[in-house]
Amino acid sequence: MVGGGQLARMTAQAAIGLGIEFRVLADTAVDSAAQVSACVQVGDYRAARDMLAFGAGCDVVTFDHEHVPGEHLTALERVTAVRPGSPALRFAQDKLAMRDRLSALEQVKALGARCPRYRPVSSLPEVIRFAAGGGGWPVVLKATSGGYDGRGVWICADASAAADVIAHGVDLIAEEYVAFDRELAVLAARSPKGQGAVYPVVQTIQAGGICREVIAPAPGLGPGLAVRAQRLGLTIAAELEVTGLLAVELFAVGDELVINELAMRPHNCGHWTIDAATTSQFEQHLRAVLDLPLGAPAATSPASVMVNVLGGADPDLYSRLVHVMAADPGVKVHLYGKAVRSGRKVGHVTVAGEDVAELRDRAWRAADYLSHGTEEPDGTAGGARAHTGGARAPTGGEGSGP
Amino acid sequence: MVGGGQLARMTAQAAIGLGIEFRVLADTAVDSAAQVSACVQVGDYRAARDMLAFGAGCDVVTFDHEHVPGEHLTALERVTAVRPGSPALRFAQDKLAMRDRLSALEQVKALGARCPRYRPVSSLPEVIRFAAGGGGWPVVLKATSGGYDGRGVWICADASAAADVIAHGVDLIAEEYVAFDRELAVLAARSPKGQGAVYPVVQTIQAGGICREVIAPAPGLGPGLAVRAQRLGLTIAAELEVTGLLAVELFAVGDELVINELAMRPHNCGHWTIDAATTSQFEQHLRAVLDLPLGAPAATSPASVMVNVLGGADPDLYSRLVHVMAADPGVKVHLYGKAVRSGRKVGHVTVAGEDVAELRDRAWRAADYLSHGTEEPDGTAGGARAHTGGARAPTGGEGSGP
Repeated sequence: MVGGGQLARMTAQAAIGLGIEFRVLADTAVDSAAQVSACVQVGDYRAARDMLAFGAGCDVVTFDHEHVPGEHLTALERVTAVRPGSPALRFAQDKLAMRDRLSALEQVKALGARCPRYRPVSSLPEVIRFAAGGGGWPVVLKATSGGYDGRGVWICADASAAADVIAHGVDLIAEEYVAFDRELAVLAARSPKGQGAVYPVVQTIQAGGICREVIAPAPGLGPGLAVRAQRLGLTIAAELEVTGLLAVELFAVGDELVINELAMRPHNCGHWTIDAATTSQFEQHLRAVLDLPLGAPAATSPASVMVNVLGGADPDLYSRLVHVMAADPGVKVHLYGKAVRSGRKVGHVTVAGEDVAELRDRAWRAADYLSHGTEEPDGTAGGARAHTGGARAPTGGEGSGP
Repeated sequence: MVGGGQLARMTAQAAIGLGIEFRVLADTAVDSAAQVSACVQVGDYRAARDMLAFGAGCDVVTFDHEHVPGEHLTALERVTAVRPGSPALRFAQDKLAMRDRLSALEQVKALGARCPRYRPVSSLPEVIRFAAGGGGWPVVLKATSGGYDGRGVWICADASAAADVIAHGVDLIAEEYVAFDRELAVLAARSPKGQGAVYPVVQTIQAGGICREVIAPAPGLGPGLAVRAQRLGLTIAAELEVTGLLAVELFAVGDELVINELAMRPHNCGHWTIDAATTSQFEQHLRAVLDLPLGAPAATSPASVMVNVLGGADPDLYSRLVHVMAADPGVKVHLYGKAVRSGRKVGHVTVAGEDVAELRDRAWRAADYLSHGTEEPDGTAGGARAHTGGARAPTGGEGSGP
C-alpha cells in the first residue's frame, strides 16, 4: 500500500488475519502505518524511482490516497498489478474528468442521481457567468486535483471571494452550491473478476470540510432511496472499472441523489465497519485488490455511530483514553499513533447498538473528551460539550461542502 | 509480549487500535507474531540475558505462553512490571501448586466447583495405590509443568500404560479420570487495580488433546450454572491475584464444575471474541496488563462458533482460502502465517449468527476445507467431511482430556 496514514494502518491490521504479507511505502518511518507494520519502505510516492522500487517487491500495489502522479501509475503498471488501475484512478484524481464521465452515464440518471451543475473555469468572468447562468451565488470552486478533507474547496459567497480563489492560480471547476437535506455516502467494493459488494448507506456529518460523524445505516432512509444509492455505488464502480473500494459521497435533496465526491480506497465513511460489519472495509479492500472473493458487507448491529477524534489542546491522548474507557466500557477507540495537532484526525471512536440518539451521545462524549480543547468551526471548544451530552441534530442542512 | 506465536500475533493486531507500542520477544524473525510486528527482538525466553534485555525496553511485560522459568520472572520483576506476576504465574506453571491452592479455596466449593482427586506420584506403586484408593482405572497422569495442547497428559487405561509414563522420569501428578458431560471454559480478566470482567461461558470440544471447536455461549447452559462458572473465573483470578486474562477449563458433570486447567494469557477458548464480542480477548488482555479500564465482554451476536484450522496435507493455505471465501462470505478466517505441518494449529475460523447447528456446520465446512487432508484422531481425513456438512454432536462426553 502506497501511503503510510491511518488508512494504511488499519489495512495493516486487517492484513494480519488474512495471513498475507503487507508492505507500506511511507514518507517517514514514524508514519501512522509505518509504526505498526513489519515491512516498511520509506520513500516518496512522487518519485518514480521510489514507486518502481516499491512495486517490484509487491504482487499487487494499492493506495491509501489518490495523489500518486498518473505517469508513475502507468510506469508501475508495466511491472506489477496496480489496483485500482490508472484509468479508474484518474476519476478520483481529476474532478473535471469525474464530472464529465458521470454526467454521461445514463445509468446514473436512471437511478435518480446527478452531478451538480459544473464547468471548468480559469478566470473571474467565467465564474461570474457560471453564477449568472444558473444557481447564482454562492458558487463552489474546487481545485481540479489534489484536494482532500476540505482542502481545495472554496464556497464563494460572491465575486470578490471567487477572485481570491482565482488568484491561487490552480486549475478549477465551478460547481452549483447544493442546498442539501443531508449528506449520505455509499461504499462499494469491486474485484478484478467483477464481483461487487456494497455496504449499507450511511449518513455523514461534516464540519469545516472534515468528516466528523457517520451514522450507519443512515437513519430514516426509505428503502427505495437506500437501494438506489447502493445501486449507484455498484454501477459507478463497474462503469469506471474500479478495483478495490469506491466511496461515493452524496447530497440528499428530497428524493434526489447529487454526487459530491468519489474516492477509490478505504474511506472515513466506512470506519464503522471495523466494529459493526461482518467484513471491515479494510479487509474488503484487500480482498478486492487481491481478487479474493468479497466478504459479507452486512452490519452486525442495528445501528452504529462513528465520530472522528480531532487533535486538541492536550497532546497526551493515552491519559485521556483511560478516562474514556472508564466512562464507557462499550466504546471502541481507534488511535492512529499520530502526534496531536489541532484539528488533525488522530483517531476515531465507534459505538454500536440499537438507539441512534444514545449511540450518538456516547460516541460524541468519548470523541469530545479525547479531542479536549478542539476548536470547532463555530468557535466553541469540543471538550465543553462532553459534559452536556447533547447530541447533534442529525441533519446539517446548511448547504454543500467538500 | 514474550513469545511469538499466534496469541502474540493477534495481540499485536489489537495493540494497533489502542495506539500503544507493542514489542515481541520471538524465537525467530519468522515466528507468527514476528512477521506482523514492527518491533521484534529475537531471543530465547529461557535465557536470563535475553529476558532482561527485552524487559528493559518495556513498560509492562506479558506472555503468550507460561514456559518462562520462574527465576527469570523474579529477576525481570526487579526491573519492570511483569503481568501476570510470578506469584500468580506459578499456578499456571505448576499443576500441583494449582491443585493445592484451588483445593484450599472455600469459595470454589461454595460455587459447586472442585478439583479432580489428585496426588503427586513418582513411582508405579503410587499410581496403583491412587487408582485403588478411589476411581480405579483409567488414571490421568500429568507432567507437573511444561505441558500444553495435550502434551504432558496421559490417560492410562492400566498399570502397564502408567509404567510407560513413569519411565519418562518427569514430575507427575495422578488425577481422577472425570467422566464429564461436556467441557466448558470461562475467560476472565483482572487488572492490577482489581477490576474484573468475565466473558460468557463457552463450550469447548477437544480432540487428541487439542481444542477443535468453541461454541459461545455454551448451548443450553442454565443461568445458574453459567453464573457460577463466571463467578468461579472471577474468584480464582482475584484469589490468585492474576493480572491479565485467566482461562479456566472446566468439566461439567451434572450440576458440578470440575476444574481442569488454568491459563493466564489469551486462550483458544476466547478466539471467538475477535469477531463476536464487544472487546476481543486480545484487547482485553492488553487493557488488563496495562491497568487500563476493562472493556465490555458482552457477545455482539446471539451465538458464534470457532473452529481451529489444523495443518493438513496441502501446504498452500492461500489457495484454499479463496474457495472458503467464495463458499461463505460470512465466515471470518484468521491465518497465523505458520508453515503447514500436520495437526499444527495454523489458523481458525469464526461464524456468528443465531442458529448454532447452522453456525457449526458453516464453521466446520470452512475449517475442514482449509485443513484438507488432516488426519483426525479417529483416522478419518478432515477434508472428507467438508462435503457431508455433518455437524459434530455438541457433547463429546467420553471422559476427561487435557
